[in-house]
Amino acid sequence: MNKQIRLAKRPEGLPKKDTWNLVEEEIPTIEDGEVLIKQHYISLDPAMRGWMNDAKSYIPPVQINEVMRAGSIGEVIESKSDKYKVGDYLSGWGGVQQYVKTNGDNWYQVDPRLAPLPVYIGTLGMPGMTAYFGIFRVGQIKEGETVLISGAAGAVGSVVGQIAKIKGCKVVGIAGGEDKCRYLIEELGFDGAIDYKKGNIYDAIKRECPVGIDVYFDNVGGDILDAALSRINMHARIVICGAISQYNRNVVQGPSNYLALLVKRARMEGMVVMDYAKDYKQAAFEMGTWMKEGKLKSKEDIYEGIENFHKTFLRLFSGDKLGKLVLKVSED
Amino acid sequence: MNKQIRLAKRPEGLPKKDTWNLVEEEIPTIEDGEVLIKQHYISLDPAMRGWMNDAKSYIPPVQINEVMRAGSIGEVIESKSDKYKVGDYLSGWGGVQQYVKTNGDNWYQVDPRLAPLPVYIGTLGMPGMTAYFGIFRVGQIKEGETVLISGAAGAVGSVVGQIAKIKGCKVVGIAGGEDKCRYLIEELGFDGAIDYKKGNIYDAIKRECPVGIDVYFDNVGGDILDAALSRINMHARIVICGAISQYNRNVVQGPSNYLALLVKRARMEGMVVMDYAKDYKQAAFEMGTWMKEGKLKSKEDIYEGIENFHKTFLRLFSGDKLGKLVLKVSED
Repeated sequence: MNKQIRLAKRPEGLPKKDTWNLVEEEIPTIEDGEVLIKQHYISLDPAMRGWMNDAKSYIPPVQINEVMRAGSIGEVIESKSDKYKVGDYLSGWGGVQQYVKTNGDNWYQVDPRLAPLPVYIGTLGMPGMTAYFGIFRVGQIKEGETVLISGAAGAVGSVVGQIAKIKGCKVVGIAGGEDKCRYLIEELGFDGAIDYKKGNIYDAIKRECPVGIDVYFDNVGGDILDAALSRINMHARIVICGAISQYNRNVVQGPSNYLALLVKRARMEGMVVMDYAKDYKQAAFEMGTWMKEGKLKSKEDIYEGIENFHKTFLRLFSGDKLGKLVLKVSED
Repeated sequence: MNKQIRLAKRPEGLPKKDTWNLVEEEIPTIEDGEVLIKQHYISLDPAMRGWMNDAKSYIPPVQINEVMRAGSIGEVIESKSDKYKVGDYLSGWGGVQQYVKTNGDNWYQVDPRLAPLPVYIGTLGMPGMTAYFGIFRVGQIKEGETVLISGAAGAVGSVVGQIAKIKGCKVVGIAGGEDKCRYLIEELGFDGAIDYKKGNIYDAIKRECPVGIDVYFDNVGGDILDAALSRINMHARIVICGAISQYNRNVVQGPSNYLALLVKRARMEGMVVMDYAKDYKQAAFEMGTWMKEGKLKSKEDIYEGIENFHKTFLRLFSGDKLGKLVLKVSED
């Protein structure tokens, strides 16, 4: 049988247990040109919360009773396709379920001998791509600049910071809790770390970024975005990648310090990773090389069991995880 | 004697009568290298409100007891300078006073035979330059795009809209009251006008910009900025030129729809006109040519008497004026 998580109803605020239904259905049978994939890992990402709202966005909302949309990685266990054979590993939008069939469109093959599977939905997957294109194309970092990152211990932020270090920037990360801050500095080589749960965030940014901020990579929004705006330099770039502090609110808190953009002739710009699809390959090659050279570390926080989807998903918002949040859904 | 308006104390919210002192002092005597200017017109601009706050900005605040900073235009009535002779007309930062002496630095000569003097502090002065560089360099308009402008009947907005029309854009202006809206369409050739005092601004923008907004030029901030964000197109540019609705508030209302930047991969960018000083001449030439050809209309709303400074200044915030607000301070 194929266990699936389907959207039961649209949540107000934080999703609750009855937001989802765990259902079982027959494992799909495939037609000519299709493959059947046994999914090993599901990617849990903050963006998923947005897809659950009945609102126009960059992607249609998940419909009620639909399998919850998610990135995933799995193994071909049956093939009627010329493209992929049994034993191939594919990554794509498989959704929160154990099996999925596809004609292979929008799936791409990965090599489990080059990196562990979860890395392909983390640093070498969407979060890594988001980091790479966000910091280069939108952030336009230059050597010697100060880069501040919120959600810095997360799947995207941790990669952003390491790339900025590789490129010769001074890198400061904001994260929740001492452990994460220690991780940023001791494991990832950040120059500074700010625990937003402790003390005044404005003071902390001033202390850690004494010459101001050239690039702010924002994953969280809210008060932290305002605090960052208060310290931007001339011609700063603010990359709007996400706003996890706001996803469960009915009314979004707008940045009341946005007029710093005027004073500092600065720019705030949004990004969506899908726009860079044609360059994923080149980015994955470059990041893979950095990983081999030991310059870029990938960290996944892996939980098990599709029936634990709900409580694992909530770790995105409680911050109770480190690096890329992954759910193992296959049963051996 | 030289009548002057000096800053008496920093206002909370809207300036009151006791924010200012009207004082008289001796007309200054000039030294070698200096000229004495009899000021004819003072420019009244929303930005002046910001200069009154004791806050770091792109320019130092006006100090208590200092002559209020303002752009101005006047005639040289005495000269010990090689650069300028009696009878020359100069524009610069003369402040709110009737006479000023200067060595000529940061002043530039204008020709009253080519355009009436007030035009040189309006369409051919800072507001016109702001419009020109804002819509070209930051807004990056392209033919066929939809351009929405707030404060559209003002000194900056009215020029922005006319330039965008010249460049083949569809132009919609937001202004307060039927008269201003009629003026935008009938006098300035805008394609649409929205009276923000009447009806729902979200509905009105949807009606007037049915295919969305490519460039939004914001002079007002607040709810109108949020409404504009709700209708931006992919890769839209939002020019943050000012936020007159917020200048008298203690806490600025941040744009709660700012995540539209992410969804639409759009950009919000601030600007300050001084950055483009080296290209003013070229811009003035181009705009002067458009004026001669009848493609660009300049509108000044001129009030008289330095003693009326306070109540005239408040017209910036009540909206009770049309086009560039100017105060005539010379006595004939």
